[in-house]
Amino acid sequence: MADLRTFGVVLFKGFELLDVFGPLEAWGMLANMGQCKVTTVAERSGAVTSAQGPKAIADYGFTDCPHLDLILIPGGIGTREEISNQPFLDWLKTRAEKAEVVTTVCTGTAILARTGLLDGRRATTNKRAFKWVAEQGAKVNWVREARWVEDGKFATSSGVSAGIDMALAVMARLYSNETAEQIAIAMEYEWHRDAGWDPFAKIHGLV
Amino acid sequence: MADLRTFGVVLFKGFELLDVFGPLEAWGMLANMGQCKVTTVAERSGAVTSAQGPKAIADYGFTDCPHLDLILIPGGIGTREEISNQPFLDWLKTRAEKAEVVTTVCTGTAILARTGLLDGRRATTNKRAFKWVAEQGAKVNWVREARWVEDGKFATSSGVSAGIDMALAVMARLYSNETAEQIAIAMEYEWHRDAGWDPFAKIHGLV
Repeated sequence: MADLRTFGVVLFKGFELLDVFGPLEAWGMLANMGQCKVTTVAERSGAVTSAQGPKAIADYGFTDCPHLDLILIPGGIGTREEISNQPFLDWLKTRAEKAEVVTTVCTGTAILARTGLLDGRRATTNKRAFKWVAEQGAKVNWVREARWVEDGKFATSSGVSAGIDMALAVMARLYSNETAEQIAIAMEYEWHRDAGWDPFAKIHGLV
Repeated sequence: MADLRTFGVVLFKGFELLDVFGPLEAWGMLANMGQCKVTTVAERSGAVTSAQGPKAIADYGFTDCPHLDLILIPGGIGTREEISNQPFLDWLKTRAEKAEVVTTVCTGTAILARTGLLDGRRATTNKRAFKWVAEQGAKVNWVREARWVEDGKFATSSGVSAGIDMALAVMARLYSNETAEQIAIAMEYEWHRDAGWDPFAKIHGLV
């Protein structure tokens, strides 16, 4: 049997809870079915405080983190500081180049944009913070109306709950539609399969 | 100004990630708007391992936990053991009697049912594990087709992602429809406002 893929989420102070734990629920269910592994990583291992207050634990620090096949960068108020955290950007750039798929949720796209890896690619982000995120990547082809966008190895999603739809779409591509459907049903989640579905772009005046 | 309500989530080994962090995202956003407080509690404070592997931190243990106005009991594979954890059932019964609203997600309803507090009341749960949960409360009026059910101070929801819809419904009742709508938009979440919406009951042959 081929080695299982490892899905790793990066935590930082002020990460948005659902950006992390929506996709982790989906990938974690797949892990419980024996089809992948999941882990958490931060600049330093241990407790990390979310934007909402509750704390999660990073299993690894940047230096001892195993290879990650799938990477997720969440959003949250903490991104305002992390876009200037050069050790994070350097680590992410190195790991992203070795990864099979790199995903971002919400304002997490701003961090990935700052590595330059999205230059010339299509990407999206949270619709309320769209202007600020777009300013972090002048060479990115920003998509104003999309639930999520896939371009090459990168998948970027709209705000917060959109990360769940993106996770299921990536899972359908890497595994199968049936697998993603099975996970969505287990989550009792009404999956948005259309990447173009985005009523929030209108609400925030982007279209 | 009246004291802010405190929303507390109970963690235990094998809790389901999204059962906890979906509602915590919604209530945590409201906390960031200065309208409530959020916290986490477990039998003992500190790191608690989820059903999917990642760990969260319980801010308090049962003995030092402050008064909780709103309580959430998540589901997850750990409920299979917790339904027989008498100290947890005793603590929950005492705290539930003092709380304004007690909510459960997924198989978390089984734990609340075992306290006897749901006897004679309407309640629902995860549709895949419906039979097992119903066996934990012979005197409960189990609702086979519902996204969530409110009866008195108790609100019980269907599986995993259903907890988000229930959280927004409870928030709309205790605060306002406008508040819940604002939170749903900030989460870029398509909120199911109809408590009777439940395609998963059919999928699992319950109706």
